[in-house]
Amino acid sequence: MPPLPRCAIVREVGLRDGLQSIATVVSTERKCAWVRTAFAAGLREIEVGSFVPARLLPQLADTADVLHYAKTLPGLSASVLVPNLRGAERALELGADLMILPLSASHAHSLANLRKTPDEVVAELGRIRAARDASGRRTLIEGGVGTAFGCTIQGEVRPAEVLRLMQALLDAGADRVSLADTVGYADPAAVSRLFEQALRIAGDRLCCGHFHDTRGLALANVVAALQLGITRFDASLAGIGGCPHAPGASGNAATEDLAFLLESMGVDTGLDLEALLALRAQVAGWIEGEPTHGALWRAGLPQTFCPARARA
Amino acid sequence: MPPLPRCAIVREVGLRDGLQSIATVVSTERKCAWVRTAFAAGLREIEVGSFVPARLLPQLADTADVLHYAKTLPGLSASVLVPNLRGAERALELGADLMILPLSASHAHSLANLRKTPDEVVAELGRIRAARDASGRRTLIEGGVGTAFGCTIQGEVRPAEVLRLMQALLDAGADRVSLADTVGYADPAAVSRLFEQALRIAGDRLCCGHFHDTRGLALANVVAALQLGITRFDASLAGIGGCPHAPGASGNAATEDLAFLLESMGVDTGLDLEALLALRAQVAGWIEGEPTHGALWRAGLPQTFCPARARA
Repeated sequence: MPPLPRCAIVREVGLRDGLQSIATVVSTERKCAWVRTAFAAGLREIEVGSFVPARLLPQLADTADVLHYAKTLPGLSASVLVPNLRGAERALELGADLMILPLSASHAHSLANLRKTPDEVVAELGRIRAARDASGRRTLIEGGVGTAFGCTIQGEVRPAEVLRLMQALLDAGADRVSLADTVGYADPAAVSRLFEQALRIAGDRLCCGHFHDTRGLALANVVAALQLGITRFDASLAGIGGCPHAPGASGNAATEDLAFLLESMGVDTGLDLEALLALRAQVAGWIEGEPTHGALWRAGLPQTFCPARARA
Repeated sequence: MPPLPRCAIVREVGLRDGLQSIATVVSTERKCAWVRTAFAAGLREIEVGSFVPARLLPQLADTADVLHYAKTLPGLSASVLVPNLRGAERALELGADLMILPLSASHAHSLANLRKTPDEVVAELGRIRAARDASGRRTLIEGGVGTAFGCTIQGEVRPAEVLRLMQALLDAGADRVSLADTVGYADPAAVSRLFEQALRIAGDRLCCGHFHDTRGLALANVVAALQLGITRFDASLAGIGGCPHAPGASGNAATEDLAFLLESMGVDTGLDLEALLALRAQVAGWIEGEPTHGALWRAGLPQTFCPARARA
């Protein structure tokens, strides 16, 4: 096995990618408790919500409040998803550490979900960059290239198109980019091929892998990207997220399982697994009746488990 | 990513490792249908049961009948688990293609489960080899080294002890050996380390990896072993198997998810995924109420899925 990075960052996206996919509305108070407890468990990057119109995603209508709270935690990078310049302006106004602009490399998916072509999203990123520069804020801009391994509407998404759009996002002013397997079509070999090519273009500006576990391969895909030196992965507690095209199907990689994978392999995440499992139980309680996922929570940590940090 | 093998074998162990862990007794007729349909879906290696006393595992009391049926399918390798010489004598008498003698590298687990020390199991393998040679049968003997990555009773199991016992099994007359993560303690880095050392000792007599998905890492572990050239993996349809120490926890790698992983990466398994998913649904119906696992069955195959064989 190729040598692995010594450290990796797990970015919690359950408050955004998770909650946006389920009907239950979690209260602002509980979302803040989630952020607080996740921070206490060692998470230092949390996507707290999305600046989309509240009528589209009422579950995330309180994103400004959650962001406001997250900013009180020293050393926490609080990110938000922004679908357009309007959302970016709110993120800048409220001082988000990072804003993520999603671009779907599948034209069909892009039109269906964002009502824009991928190249129109690239142009929007250019406007967001101009707004950021004019604002004097330090908010980072991440271009998140989704459906990077295929799409449930369009089917195949050509790697050359994914790479072209990633390059275009960087050219338009993205500080960094990430690749997402939005629908669980990726496999470790495909991840290895695409991330290797993407690294050649973006270098360390390729900052994150986002793998859905729709078909059970998320963690194997993480290892494939990790072997190439990718050191940031999105995940949501209890694997919430789901897929609108496959009711009950798994969503994001489960934060607690991903952390267990990394720590077991000796890759330091700075996370307290027992604390994460306790928070997972709390979150699962708040969304009772919604499908949750993951394996570690049932079995518990191995008796022999030793965090990466304790082995050094 | 290191180059992957072009082909791999999925060995179905649901009829043994799966059914032995659940209370529901599946009828002989249904077991034979399972074998027949699995064979039609392309499976060419099936563990059909276990020659243990029926009072211990009534679910597997009809192993002789299922083996008898399996032997009517041309080109199918039908294997059985044998806990001792007595079981091996039945396997020889009934003409099993392969018998697997489990050895637990954890002394505590070995005493608890087999009421023998690991070295007593090695000695038993010597007696089984003598019986096989005397019988004139071609039944292969596999020594399956379990709890190879740790144990829920004893905790740590030292790799040196696993390798010593594997060597001892070969010295005692095993035709081949396999390594099993019986309790889901393995991770890809540990798999890579142990299988690499084991390959140095056993070469291609190290024939199989058996990974439980108790903590969600089974498929990532498969990829780690595959990268070293291991080309046979145990799995059970619907991931049945479970863990007596963690009620509801995942069991074996799910056959259908494993096949999807391999085929997606371009590793030819000869399996028909749609047929496997149909059989999975049938099996899940037969054991209704028992926990089942796996992800692919909910989401279905990607639109873009193309079997490895069709790409050549």
